[in-house]
Amino acid sequence: MKLQIFDSTLRDGAQGANISFSVDDKIKVIRTLDALGIDFIEAGNPFSNPAEMQFFQQIAGMKLEHAHIVAFGSTCRKGAAPAQDNNLQSLLAAGTEYVAIFGKSHIRHVTDVLRATPEENRRMIAESVRFLTEHGKKVIFDAEHFFDGFKADADYAMQTLESAATAGAYALCLCDTNGGIFPDEAFCITKQVTERFPDRIVAIHCHNDGGLAVASSIEAVKAGAQQIQGTFLGFGERCGNANLSTILCNLQLKRDYECIPPEKLKDIYGSAMAIAETSNNAVPPNQPYVGMNAFAHKAGMHADGVLKYSSSFEHVDPSVIGNKRKFLLSEISGKSAIYDKLKNYFPALDKNGAEMGEIVSALKERALQGYQYEAAEASFVLVVEKILGKYKNSFDLISYKIISEQPAIEGKVASAIVKIRVGGVTKIAAADGEGPVHAMDLALRSALADFYPEIARVSLVDFKVRVLDSDKATAAKVRVLITTADSADSWTTVGVSEDVIEASWIALTDSIDYALMQRL
Amino acid sequence: MKLQIFDSTLRDGAQGANISFSVDDKIKVIRTLDALGIDFIEAGNPFSNPAEMQFFQQIAGMKLEHAHIVAFGSTCRKGAAPAQDNNLQSLLAAGTEYVAIFGKSHIRHVTDVLRATPEENRRMIAESVRFLTEHGKKVIFDAEHFFDGFKADADYAMQTLESAATAGAYALCLCDTNGGIFPDEAFCITKQVTERFPDRIVAIHCHNDGGLAVASSIEAVKAGAQQIQGTFLGFGERCGNANLSTILCNLQLKRDYECIPPEKLKDIYGSAMAIAETSNNAVPPNQPYVGMNAFAHKAGMHADGVLKYSSSFEHVDPSVIGNKRKFLLSEISGKSAIYDKLKNYFPALDKNGAEMGEIVSALKERALQGYQYEAAEASFVLVVEKILGKYKNSFDLISYKIISEQPAIEGKVASAIVKIRVGGVTKIAAADGEGPVHAMDLALRSALADFYPEIARVSLVDFKVRVLDSDKATAAKVRVLITTADSADSWTTVGVSEDVIEASWIALTDSIDYALMQRL
Repeated sequence: MKLQIFDSTLRDGAQGANISFSVDDKIKVIRTLDALGIDFIEAGNPFSNPAEMQFFQQIAGMKLEHAHIVAFGSTCRKGAAPAQDNNLQSLLAAGTEYVAIFGKSHIRHVTDVLRATPEENRRMIAESVRFLTEHGKKVIFDAEHFFDGFKADADYAMQTLESAATAGAYALCLCDTNGGIFPDEAFCITKQVTERFPDRIVAIHCHNDGGLAVASSIEAVKAGAQQIQGTFLGFGERCGNANLSTILCNLQLKRDYECIPPEKLKDIYGSAMAIAETSNNAVPPNQPYVGMNAFAHKAGMHADGVLKYSSSFEHVDPSVIGNKRKFLLSEISGKSAIYDKLKNYFPALDKNGAEMGEIVSALKERALQGYQYEAAEASFVLVVEKILGKYKNSFDLISYKIISEQPAIEGKVASAIVKIRVGGVTKIAAADGEGPVHAMDLALRSALADFYPEIARVSLVDFKVRVLDSDKATAAKVRVLITTADSADSWTTVGVSEDVIEASWIALTDSIDYALMQRL
Repeated sequence: MKLQIFDSTLRDGAQGANISFSVDDKIKVIRTLDALGIDFIEAGNPFSNPAEMQFFQQIAGMKLEHAHIVAFGSTCRKGAAPAQDNNLQSLLAAGTEYVAIFGKSHIRHVTDVLRATPEENRRMIAESVRFLTEHGKKVIFDAEHFFDGFKADADYAMQTLESAATAGAYALCLCDTNGGIFPDEAFCITKQVTERFPDRIVAIHCHNDGGLAVASSIEAVKAGAQQIQGTFLGFGERCGNANLSTILCNLQLKRDYECIPPEKLKDIYGSAMAIAETSNNAVPPNQPYVGMNAFAHKAGMHADGVLKYSSSFEHVDPSVIGNKRKFLLSEISGKSAIYDKLKNYFPALDKNGAEMGEIVSALKERALQGYQYEAAEASFVLVVEKILGKYKNSFDLISYKIISEQPAIEGKVASAIVKIRVGGVTKIAAADGEGPVHAMDLALRSALADFYPEIARVSLVDFKVRVLDSDKATAAKVRVLITTADSADSWTTVGVSEDVIEASWIALTDSIDYALMQRL
């Protein structure tokens, strides 16, 4: 059975802390969701500010393969006619076929917050839906606080839906605005709605304040809801909205619903990464299905089990959704997991040889220092190459000196002097930059340029800093991850030190060693 | 009704990426969980390595108020007698009253992974449970892959429980080892077990691979399970274990179960922070109940609503569990939310005055530069003091020069020279340190010491770096957060710059300005 998926990353998702989208970001998110076969994309509230309205006008001509763009707003104001309501006029002006408007369905919110009569609230709903419908819109009515409202006064909550349905609403959306309902409540209340309105699309819109939004959405579907609202990665205010990537994987892989076209399933992981990157928020590593660690195995025993019989610790095959099995290289990783990772790089390595023993000990030793290679495979390969005697360093460091200063000199706050030796030839170079690591990177590249002109083809693309033992404050260890890329590939290296400059230096030299040894 | 809460943060939780506990860490976690009234704490596997065994011996004399420590292991090996099994001997030697052992309950895992007959697997379970019971232990039998096993061959899965029960097991724990079951399956299968074994404690142990572990645990409780296993913050391999803090808040606040003593509820938030800090992992800000943003409101409209009528966007009162309502100071925060935050600091401020308008514009302006004040309230207060003309700076910076170098000089990789002016008097001071920010902090404090001897009472306790626009690599902007404390209080300040040193300097000077203006 086909379900409609309604993504509100750009509207309700943008209410989350640390989430804000530029116009370009929004267009990227729309392209990603459309390519994945998502049915509805709620793109914002055109009435909230002029920039939002401009955005709707800008995307009006955008050609989408599959998705419908939805503009969001509210019912008309108390005591006002729809035609005089600027919010409803904005929804018309936004130019989308579908619009979503929220209205109150909880009697106490009507009387205590809105301070209107129950009848006036129903008039606002009915007239707003009718006005938009008569202007050719398909209206999704978001019944705010529906579940709490149903528990307070079921009759009144139902009447608000009745008002919207009679006025021609395309869909009735049941919102758990506070995010506190339980899945059994979602089932039982949704069931009563789907039975009463068999000719309307019933939608479910959950928030995750009780950690139950995924489960409640699924229960609502079992009760007959045909549209699921949420945000692809669970972004949203407080504890977030229902996580659509989790829900759709669950329902499509395990319960035979069709949420997106089956041939798009393999793009789910990539879409999640793209949306996360566009929003400048990492996907939580433990997020179901699309997290970097969703299929990562650490315990030696488990990792061995997975290698023997893949369903022993995996609920689904990660490749179906484009994710990958992963073995974490931690102090308790079994030799099997480490070997499994290494055999792609070193096919001749003997799993039971002395070198494997040395590799395992070296990794344990370095883990104690704060090194983690999960996200820094290039540095991991270099460690192993050193043990196997295959490593050849590209240069020796003689010294560096990095100066950060205020006042800045000609606008540059940092300068670096790097002195290296390559095959008996010494070279010193200097550079200034926007910060110490930037200056150091430029000086090192300048020093290397005569020896390795090909280094110009690779560049740093990402730089991350993590404080390890933060209770030691500024004398704490930091772990720096640097990602470097050329036109074909990218690789990540790691450095650890109490000194952020030294940690960066270690990661930087690894990235260049790796580039020169493996790729150029 | 009382439920037993069984926390495995130290055992199954430690399987998670980025989680590892020192002996001191483990003891801190045990103290925190015990003080909160958690019933069982699974502390590790004494057979896995000598350090784990030593740990059990070390804590054997530890006086706990409430909790029972549990040692974890497995049934005896195929073809071996319990008395000859080193793993079972380790469980005896661990000296705990309760032990948990896992065994197989999925027929295919018995035949294909263990490569034993169905009868031999049942013998291993029965004899291991009997052996431990006869030695005075209370045995929790963890039926690995129970739910998947039940779906594959319900009779055999039940027989493995029967073997454990007949041999005297205290509790039968139903494990969703792969984390893929749905809540309705958890209910229906658990129900059959509780009906068959009415005189045993039935426990539920879920993993979160489908984002459903909280819901499935709750459904199992509805089906008669009396013990919930999980980890307090959801730590664990892949997508983590069932999150106990979420489950116990849901069940105790909304379904009238008693999970912990009611007077401890208010300590939940603090316990979560303590466990997160000990494990050096932040609580995800959007985590239900205990996340920093679990009760944070961003949208202007929502924030206004909450101020009018607190249940309008809150499913529970955050103070019940020791958390707080919060208004995010973002570009779309309404004036009400900003005012609400400020009125504690500036009671005379007029919500509708010109100064409020200036404050709102200044915050928007600074948000565009990358400043966020959600976690840096001290810097926020300083911004407002500047606007209100109440700010008095403690010193002027004339210049600083920070040098990072390799090779290190006498073991120090960084040195700093800081020149400041206080009331017409110029002072220059220098220091060396473990890194540039450390050296800078020490030099600044040394320069200030003559003018403000009280500065010796405050110290830096946390230092965090976040890269903002990481696609610009080393020339990207970074946001530095510094937390400073004296004996009574702590405060956090923020600095943003393309230069990590300058960003640190800004946060550092704010922290000292704040200390000198507000606290000393």
